[in-house]
Amino acid sequence: MTRTSVLLLLAGAAFAQQPPRPPQFVSPEVSADRKVTFRLHAPSAEAVNLVGSDIPNNGKGAPMTKGAEGVWEVSLGPLAAGAYRYQFNIQGVPVIDPRNPSVSESNNNVWSLVVVPGSENIDVRNVPHGAVAAVTYQSSALGRTRRMHVYTPPGYETSKAKYPVFYLLHGASDSDDSWSSVGRAGFIVDNLIAAGKAKPMIVVMPAGHTTRGGFTVPGGADEFARDFLGDVMPCVEKNYRVRTDRGSRAMAGLSMGGGQTLSVAIPNLSKFAYIGVFSSGLFQMFGTGRGPAAQAPKGPTWEEQNIKALDEAGLKKGLKLFWFGTGKDDFLLKTTQQTVAMLRKHGFDVKYDETEGAHTWLVWREYLQGFVPQLFR
Amino acid sequence: MTRTSVLLLLAGAAFAQQPPRPPQFVSPEVSADRKVTFRLHAPSAEAVNLVGSDIPNNGKGAPMTKGAEGVWEVSLGPLAAGAYRYQFNIQGVPVIDPRNPSVSESNNNVWSLVVVPGSENIDVRNVPHGAVAAVTYQSSALGRTRRMHVYTPPGYETSKAKYPVFYLLHGASDSDDSWSSVGRAGFIVDNLIAAGKAKPMIVVMPAGHTTRGGFTVPGGADEFARDFLGDVMPCVEKNYRVRTDRGSRAMAGLSMGGGQTLSVAIPNLSKFAYIGVFSSGLFQMFGTGRGPAAQAPKGPTWEEQNIKALDEAGLKKGLKLFWFGTGKDDFLLKTTQQTVAMLRKHGFDVKYDETEGAHTWLVWREYLQGFVPQLFR
Repeated sequence: MTRTSVLLLLAGAAFAQQPPRPPQFVSPEVSADRKVTFRLHAPSAEAVNLVGSDIPNNGKGAPMTKGAEGVWEVSLGPLAAGAYRYQFNIQGVPVIDPRNPSVSESNNNVWSLVVVPGSENIDVRNVPHGAVAAVTYQSSALGRTRRMHVYTPPGYETSKAKYPVFYLLHGASDSDDSWSSVGRAGFIVDNLIAAGKAKPMIVVMPAGHTTRGGFTVPGGADEFARDFLGDVMPCVEKNYRVRTDRGSRAMAGLSMGGGQTLSVAIPNLSKFAYIGVFSSGLFQMFGTGRGPAAQAPKGPTWEEQNIKALDEAGLKKGLKLFWFGTGKDDFLLKTTQQTVAMLRKHGFDVKYDETEGAHTWLVWREYLQGFVPQLFR
Repeated sequence: MTRTSVLLLLAGAAFAQQPPRPPQFVSPEVSADRKVTFRLHAPSAEAVNLVGSDIPNNGKGAPMTKGAEGVWEVSLGPLAAGAYRYQFNIQGVPVIDPRNPSVSESNNNVWSLVVVPGSENIDVRNVPHGAVAAVTYQSSALGRTRRMHVYTPPGYETSKAKYPVFYLLHGASDSDDSWSSVGRAGFIVDNLIAAGKAKPMIVVMPAGHTTRGGFTVPGGADEFARDFLGDVMPCVEKNYRVRTDRGSRAMAGLSMGGGQTLSVAIPNLSKFAYIGVFSSGLFQMFGTGRGPAAQAPKGPTWEEQNIKALDEAGLKKGLKLFWFGTGKDDFLLKTTQQTVAMLRKHGFDVKYDETEGAHTWLVWREYLQGFVPQLFR
């Protein structure tokens, strides 16, 4: 190496403000046998826990052990191949991993993200890759700019063809980033297309929350439907080369997004030929013991409100797939079962898989891998 | 609101693992007069500082004050409109804001991001927006998949036109995400195009670091050049509708990326008609006192190595803009001055603006706003 072919340029300002350099270590460290070691330098902490909803046996947090130089450590696994959100908790303060630049956005916060390789469908492999774009649009329904993520498949950019569109909705603890980060949706569709298992398609991942920092609360489902039907879909159909016939439109969502899928797609059944509901159903505010305290709304049930759409036989013919999947350990299992039964009562040919697993991204990535190959056939 | 139009779907698993609900507050809170209040719930912390390289007078960290219910707080500003990276530091542990889902990736870590509105060019406004895509490609130079970000302008998706390309490089404390997050590049170009001040263009933001977690070290500049010329540019020119004549290619970078720009563009001057170097120059490893300890490389200087390209008069004619900008308080000011002098000595018509400011994103966003309108005229 010659002396002055070396260009060493430091963004010095940032460095000047760092505290004295902490010990050298890597976190997270993923071993070949899919064990993951998490480490945090916190010399004055009295206790540090690892938290993350999808980490097996993690429960209320795995206690970490303090080692040399104030570095806390815990190893988990072997973990199933996939991606995991995690944080450290230091005496009540949630802390993302300062050594890990990979993150996954949620609705109100950010998680550190570790990817455990070993899955043919999920890994970032040497196959043609599409692109996942953050797209800003003006929501006339909400009166502000909003963001969605849009996956375009390999070859889209230089093709002249029109593509089918899959609208894929996130859950209450997510943002429009989540399916692309922890959900690995772009890489999963890349791999399925490369293997000839899925048709090239555009995947639109809109923002499900209509109030910053809030759940879908009374009015929220309507707000989402207005934004989705009045802004998201027109924006996509104006700006991308997409097919707009019913057979070229699919919609699915997980948890909150599954409920939103039903609330949008059933009253607009002429627009969608494929519907997926992951770990979800029609979830009433009361009766589960999990909702925040709020005044009980009154009036007709969802079924009563949508009775005309539910009983319109003609539109059921063009519905090529209506799929539900929920894990046996999911707290929404009964909700799913009741929703499936109600829809079948109205003559829908619902496919329902009761799988292993709970209300986690481990399950939702599996559902995506099963759902996508069935689309646009 | 009717009872069962309410769909309340909770991603319960994540919630079940949270500690008891902390007090309600917002962080960061941006006031109408551009003051920003940062808050953190850390009841058992003994001291909390706010850190962030671009926050005025922040120096080694602004001490925060503990208030009711263990919520620490500090207010800064009024701040200049723009975006700021920040973190909390709790007794040596860097902590991003648990209440803020907006982040900016760096090379080795993640910062919380707060956007202070008030700039016509930087704000997210109700104008046509382009898209910023994360694009995965296979780097044959590095033997692994890599990520870049690609901005496509409004109208690109449904146009048949070919577009000019601006390659925009980040600094040592950044990743390929940084220009789009803290740098606001997509929104800046959106606004400039909407105002008729810039031509529609594609902006490619590649990853500058060739070794995970490392600086551009000896060999790094070469690795970057091989990846850029052999993989990034061909990937862009294969997958996007782009013009490939010299007059339709621009390249610029900040700090480390400015040095990389010189190292790529000067020996390949026939490919680029516009070159920008932000807060940078040719920066030798020794003589600044800022580089990590490493063995002094030996051999010819950069100037000597590139003497043929530097003295080739014919190629200078097609170089439409060669612009340097560096702040008067930048630690690379002398480096910039020496580099500009060397280039002028070889007959380059270098435009050089010595501006207010230091080695910060406040300056780089300004430079981008000044540079982009001059491109592809």
